[in-house]
Amino acid sequence: MAENLIQTFVDCGVDVCFTNPGTSEMHCVAAIDRIEGARGILALFEGAVTGMADGYGRMAGKPAFTLLHLGPGLSNASANLHNAKRANTPIINVVGDHATYHAQYDAPLASDIAGLARPVSHWVHSSPNAASMAADGARAVAAAMTHPGQIATLIAPANCAWDAASGPAHAIVPPPLAQPGESAIADAVSALRSGRKTAILMRGACLMEDGLELAGRIAEASEARLMCDTFHARLQRGAGRVAIEKMPYFAEDIVDFLAGTERLILIGTKPPVSFFAYPNKPSWMTPEGCEIIHLATPEQDGIAALRAVADGLGTKPAQNLQPLTRPELPTGGPFNAYTIGTAVGALMPENAIVSDEAATSGNGCYGPTEGCPPHDWLCLTGGSIGQGLPLAAGAAVACPDRKVICLHGDGGAMYTVQSLWTMAREKLDVTVVIFANRKYNILQVELMRVGAGNPGPGALNLLDLSNPDLDWVKIAEGMGVAASRAEDQDAFNMQFADAMKQKGPRLIEAVI
Amino acid sequence: MAENLIQTFVDCGVDVCFTNPGTSEMHCVAAIDRIEGARGILALFEGAVTGMADGYGRMAGKPAFTLLHLGPGLSNASANLHNAKRANTPIINVVGDHATYHAQYDAPLASDIAGLARPVSHWVHSSPNAASMAADGARAVAAAMTHPGQIATLIAPANCAWDAASGPAHAIVPPPLAQPGESAIADAVSALRSGRKTAILMRGACLMEDGLELAGRIAEASEARLMCDTFHARLQRGAGRVAIEKMPYFAEDIVDFLAGTERLILIGTKPPVSFFAYPNKPSWMTPEGCEIIHLATPEQDGIAALRAVADGLGTKPAQNLQPLTRPELPTGGPFNAYTIGTAVGALMPENAIVSDEAATSGNGCYGPTEGCPPHDWLCLTGGSIGQGLPLAAGAAVACPDRKVICLHGDGGAMYTVQSLWTMAREKLDVTVVIFANRKYNILQVELMRVGAGNPGPGALNLLDLSNPDLDWVKIAEGMGVAASRAEDQDAFNMQFADAMKQKGPRLIEAVI
Repeated sequence: MAENLIQTFVDCGVDVCFTNPGTSEMHCVAAIDRIEGARGILALFEGAVTGMADGYGRMAGKPAFTLLHLGPGLSNASANLHNAKRANTPIINVVGDHATYHAQYDAPLASDIAGLARPVSHWVHSSPNAASMAADGARAVAAAMTHPGQIATLIAPANCAWDAASGPAHAIVPPPLAQPGESAIADAVSALRSGRKTAILMRGACLMEDGLELAGRIAEASEARLMCDTFHARLQRGAGRVAIEKMPYFAEDIVDFLAGTERLILIGTKPPVSFFAYPNKPSWMTPEGCEIIHLATPEQDGIAALRAVADGLGTKPAQNLQPLTRPELPTGGPFNAYTIGTAVGALMPENAIVSDEAATSGNGCYGPTEGCPPHDWLCLTGGSIGQGLPLAAGAAVACPDRKVICLHGDGGAMYTVQSLWTMAREKLDVTVVIFANRKYNILQVELMRVGAGNPGPGALNLLDLSNPDLDWVKIAEGMGVAASRAEDQDAFNMQFADAMKQKGPRLIEAVI
Repeated sequence: MAENLIQTFVDCGVDVCFTNPGTSEMHCVAAIDRIEGARGILALFEGAVTGMADGYGRMAGKPAFTLLHLGPGLSNASANLHNAKRANTPIINVVGDHATYHAQYDAPLASDIAGLARPVSHWVHSSPNAASMAADGARAVAAAMTHPGQIATLIAPANCAWDAASGPAHAIVPPPLAQPGESAIADAVSALRSGRKTAILMRGACLMEDGLELAGRIAEASEARLMCDTFHARLQRGAGRVAIEKMPYFAEDIVDFLAGTERLILIGTKPPVSFFAYPNKPSWMTPEGCEIIHLATPEQDGIAALRAVADGLGTKPAQNLQPLTRPELPTGGPFNAYTIGTAVGALMPENAIVSDEAATSGNGCYGPTEGCPPHDWLCLTGGSIGQGLPLAAGAAVACPDRKVICLHGDGGAMYTVQSLWTMAREKLDVTVVIFANRKYNILQVELMRVGAGNPGPGALNLLDLSNPDLDWVKIAEGMGVAASRAEDQDAFNMQFADAMKQKGPRLIEAVI
């Protein structure tokens, strides 16, 4: 029954629920209300629900659970589950279903929930009865917490939630963290000692401070370059930390970036490939002749791998740390993604969390913030736009004492715009900057790059957000979020500085 | 290649594309621009895209095609595809995918597109190469046009769109309409002559004027009741047409509604069941002992079945037609869903199209409009909220000379609120009435009905849209739609009357 399930979650430390429930979830809603320690947070669309669970999971290091309404609720949730799956964020989805005996009637809301769940989940299970539901919940928690983090989807038929059952289940310990192989470690040490140009490409927990410090030792001992994927789930960066190079986005830029690399050591990631295929351009980005060493798979302990290699090389604590260097606040002059990014770099407080879905405007912010006080940077991991706003909201729920800055393109922000309302209701400390270039700029770039010929007005019209222009101030205010518009740099500086001083949700539409 | 695919669609009469494209769809975007007769309509979220395609398909009687961006685009599109599937609306989805040779690399946007497509499609196919793409498109059209209407999903890898190929494909004739069985017709005639209390429950094309006229003849000759499902795809109703009873929503009301029925004749639908299961209440709604006669399955020709039965009974043209009776415009006094519905009934123009997702407010509008001049009524067919706005937009694209009235609950309207922008861009003649009760009222009702106990504030909070209140006027204006707020009946009357006189998009927030 629902109480047992929710109590099991809470006992396992899973106490935050992001939801947009329906009739079949009403017993779970009532249980969240009754079980002490459970907190329910409403979002007005399921894509916002799972984006929030992703942001929460990345920052809390443990899963939230979602409560979704049958197949369609899961469908709406799925694009951001795709992103979360690519981020390996631990998330538990509880998807309500018709009572088991009602399934035979194919009522209007019936659909193949398990079929919908599989492409966006690592683990899928449907509870057969009320007695097993709590234990299924404990298994879902263990599945979600299995390294490096998984999407666990538990289908909960309504009668399993309302029939009586004996009590909550005990926590299940997730499988132990798999260790990297000795030979892979030896190969990495040998590559790093070879004198060949070597790069270490890392993903996952290695991008947290401890992993970066180990990587920094190795880099100092071997002259290896440190790299992360273009779209990492969470990177700890800023002053006092070991800096890492970020892979560029476009294929030809990756080729330049990796040119000359003779050894590529992978930790928790795959060899780099282009994000999309392009006619007559390669997809595979590793330079010809470069040896690839799989030091640790995503399922293995990447930190342990770094430590073993650092020990093997006989390294000392990393010295080459990012100095504290803030850019000057730009005043007057041009107003674009770079000047905005410079202002963010000048004003961003210590310990901020940045949710970056600024697309073509993102590069403008990444560079100028590298020397800011320590902060976390979260990216759109699966390429499915509409993650940045709810990701920021979820991060703010996980870290109520930290300022969250959401840098967002206007096209993507419309996808899960409902997230603004939850920011207002929960009084989350999120400052949203909308880069309002009034087009899907990346697509106008890509249209040329894929060789689709000279676009006519009909094609450009489908990549354009004007006619009419979106008024982000009205949209945000319509959902209860204080908002302002900046049409030049000085206005932006003033509005952003003000937002950094206040707590609570705030949106700035930067018209660029 | 993309041009051949789009040309094939246009040659088959499929010339409207609702889309939110991405990089892998750029050749299709360019082709829509180049092929004469193709029209691309941008929506700012894929749930709006497919809701529009559903509204278009219901009113045009032929499919639009959608253009969606890989698995996540399809995921976002899926909830309204679920609704469209339940409506048997013909729709063709073209889902872009990575180039076939790029699939091996598992790039960030890669996912199991076919797996995501199957639960929301009747037909799924992935083009293997450019040469087959146009023929696959022709097959998709035939699949979509197969009676009673299907969702056909064609996966289009990027290289199939950009590689050269020889030319468009010829149209494929869909399979012929299956005829109802002789014995089923004889059983129905015999039931209708039996003197037992008989009801005819119809769905699909039978709910258009011609089918209703035949059903009316039968009812007059036999005293049978005529019924349609609670959530029909499209019903032609109003003055001069044969009226039909609508099944109520709640299980106990259906029991009362069907009480005493001894023979239930089904055309294009299934025996009625409750929308959800409830503890200790039956799901199966047909009265005990009532004989069920399956006159025509959804795949069979329901109109032919009605004609055969009408002939078998020796009927005459239906006499009992709905008289023209409009309610008086209510002034002053209370302001609620019923008074609003009465005003709609008083003011609705001839030939209007109503998109009804008003949920608990919907009943208030259905009764007072029954005697209005002829109009079409479209319902939320699959229970997945967020269909009404895009459905209205798509209907307006299909029928540019008819006034579309969208009656919408506030909770559901937030799901695909992006649809408002497309209404503004395309200058669609849609008047949206938002029933702003500031809660998921149906869930507050259902919470009690499922026996989840007395809800505490935490539970009610998850079913409530206040704190903060949504400001629909700002939200609509933020997307370019003229909007106003009505807090009493007189204000509503004036605003709605004004909207009926103007063309173009308009939103009225009715605070009830």
